[in-house]
Amino acid sequence: MTYDTLLANISRHISLTPEDARSLISVIALQEGQPCKSINFVHAGALRAYCIDKQGKETTIMFALPDWWVTDMYCFVNRKPAMMFIEAIDNSVVFQIQKDDFDKLFSLIPKFEKWFRVLMQNAYIREQLRIIENLSLSAEERYDNFLKKYPQVAQQVPQKQIASYLGITPEFLSTIRKNKTRGPIS
Amino acid sequence: MTYDTLLANISRHISLTPEDARSLISVIALQEGQPCKSINFVHAGALRAYCIDKQGKETTIMFALPDWWVTDMYCFVNRKPAMMFIEAIDNSVVFQIQKDDFDKLFSLIPKFEKWFRVLMQNAYIREQLRIIENLSLSAEERYDNFLKKYPQVAQQVPQKQIASYLGITPEFLSTIRKNKTRGPIS
Repeated sequence: MTYDTLLANISRHISLTPEDARSLISVIALQEGQPCKSINFVHAGALRAYCIDKQGKETTIMFALPDWWVTDMYCFVNRKPAMMFIEAIDNSVVFQIQKDDFDKLFSLIPKFEKWFRVLMQNAYIREQLRIIENLSLSAEERYDNFLKKYPQVAQQVPQKQIASYLGITPEFLSTIRKNKTRGPIS
Repeated sequence: MTYDTLLANISRHISLTPEDARSLISVIALQEGQPCKSINFVHAGALRAYCIDKQGKETTIMFALPDWWVTDMYCFVNRKPAMMFIEAIDNSVVFQIQKDDFDKLFSLIPKFEKWFRVLMQNAYIREQLRIIENLSLSAEERYDNFLKKYPQVAQQVPQKQIASYLGITPEFLSTIRKNKTRGPIS
């Protein structure tokens, strides 16, 4: 197993010396685990984060494809029991870093602060744009934006999970898709 | 004007030397401006960030009370024209830092990375929880959570803006409030 994908991902924001890279690799785990206690880098495959409400309804919070990071950030940061489930929706290889090791990396290599600052900044912006879209766009427009932003996800995951991510029923998504295929009535 | 509130806010995450504080204060502006080009710290009063969709409908993205930071983060980070409007909804005093000065602070005082990393981490978590709530809770439950999380905002801002934040009509919020006052039918 090489860590090229992970090192390339982080090197987009900060430059890593060979020693920095060794420190990082020394805390990587590649195993099944409580996702909430770790932050996960997708090396291959696809993951889905979802939660289940009191009525038993599943809600898809996010997808994660190769080169993406995913965790239940609230629980990871605050060391709380997980609110979300993270499942592989394809054969996946995931690198995990445990919270204690993650904190140590920041003390040991302060420039990791910059890398994670940029990661969190991008994550915040992505969620803020999603909130704006959810509040101001129609389901059709949101589905179109989803296809443009995440063409790979759209190909890889079941339609009912995309519907759950968009906050609509699978039946409604099916209607939207049929209308798109037919095109506008002329 | 003293900068105690601002310095206390940042000192919750990193310790500032008198020189760090001077560097920070040297780039603070206190003026009207293009909010997108600056990040704003609310010293007093209350702000609201909102956007207007193609149909002219206003959507409230967030509120900001004293001790909170607010900007159109996507546009601030990427130096794009603002998508959001930020308005004072009360007599307000706001400290602003321009993007160029903000970037210089990170080079000059690298520990600012940690402060902003924590700020972005918290902002991401807040938006992620909001997405979960929007997708899985009823409007009544979301309003209850809003009252618990932001009691000050609930007192200070008009009901129609709270409705817009929750993604419901003012009429529906009014019904929810009436039902809460009456209590469950027994």
